[in-house]
Amino acid sequence: MKLYFVTSNPNKVREARLIIRDYDIEQYDMELPELQGEQEEIVRQKAKMAVETIKKPCFVEDTALCFNALNGLPGEYIKHFIEKLGLKNVYKLLDGFEDKSAKAVAMIGYCEPGKEPVIIRGEINGTIVMPRGESNFGWDPIFQPDGKDKTYGEMTEEEKNSKSHREMVVIKFKEFLKKR
Amino acid sequence: MKLYFVTSNPNKVREARLIIRDYDIEQYDMELPELQGEQEEIVRQKAKMAVETIKKPCFVEDTALCFNALNGLPGEYIKHFIEKLGLKNVYKLLDGFEDKSAKAVAMIGYCEPGKEPVIIRGEINGTIVMPRGESNFGWDPIFQPDGKDKTYGEMTEEEKNSKSHREMVVIKFKEFLKKR
Repeated sequence: MKLYFVTSNPNKVREARLIIRDYDIEQYDMELPELQGEQEEIVRQKAKMAVETIKKPCFVEDTALCFNALNGLPGEYIKHFIEKLGLKNVYKLLDGFEDKSAKAVAMIGYCEPGKEPVIIRGEINGTIVMPRGESNFGWDPIFQPDGKDKTYGEMTEEEKNSKSHREMVVIKFKEFLKKR
Repeated sequence: MKLYFVTSNPNKVREARLIIRDYDIEQYDMELPELQGEQEEIVRQKAKMAVETIKKPCFVEDTALCFNALNGLPGEYIKHFIEKLGLKNVYKLLDGFEDKSAKAVAMIGYCEPGKEPVIIRGEINGTIVMPRGESNFGWDPIFQPDGKDKTYGEMTEEEKNSKSHREMVVIKFKEFLKKR
């Protein structure tokens, strides 16, 4: 069976294909508007818009970086913060707060025509640190997962993908697909 | 001539009526989705959505609080930050930055059916301070306009409205309407 993955990023599609082998995952490159608000609501809206266009089973994926001291913010807005401030100043947002812990949260919104979207969540705890390593994926250099001594930015792609928030959500999605 | 002001806030309508006397300003209460992104783009989208529904000349208004040290952020997202963090912790976001200056920015998006929206901007410079005074309007207690010794939260409604970013944008809008 075919599933459409709505994303502009072919690497994400490659990753999903490695985990979900029982489905034929095809990339569908489409720009979806992003609303303000809670991540779950944003993913739900994106999945709805995607299925209205494609009219076939499809899913979207979305990542947020949630600082615990900021009650989950910047969350969804992290990409705008990094664009506007740079990594070092995003780290400095926590100067006034003792708690530097954070969650990397990935969500998949899956939707079939005529049905409500299903939201699946993967989450990794970690710490916000001064940037270290490469910045291929936005906030990688400021996020150090719990139990590791490297930031995502210092890890190889293989190290990073193993037990990442993104891998977690794709594995959960695979389980969901099996049980349907 | 009649103009529709799309807002859920009757106080804003009252304020606009005091300044724009040549038009019959009528409130149109409608929930408009807010996209992520730059304030001007958000206002443009809201004005477009409003005119598509109302099909008559109408305008929307939008306010952002832009910290200069954060290159304009939280900006549009200030309401989410205050909801999630509270005023004191929003102030603490600047602990790591010497520059506490900020801009209060109001924008009006005016649109006629079949035309592109016109964006009008009013802006007041000030400083982000520890919260002082009443918090009827979100961030009032942490914004102290340049040349004043009170925050918006410590001012009477009259003091606050005189030469505010909101008054400025409505006056500019009035001038725009005259010149058409």
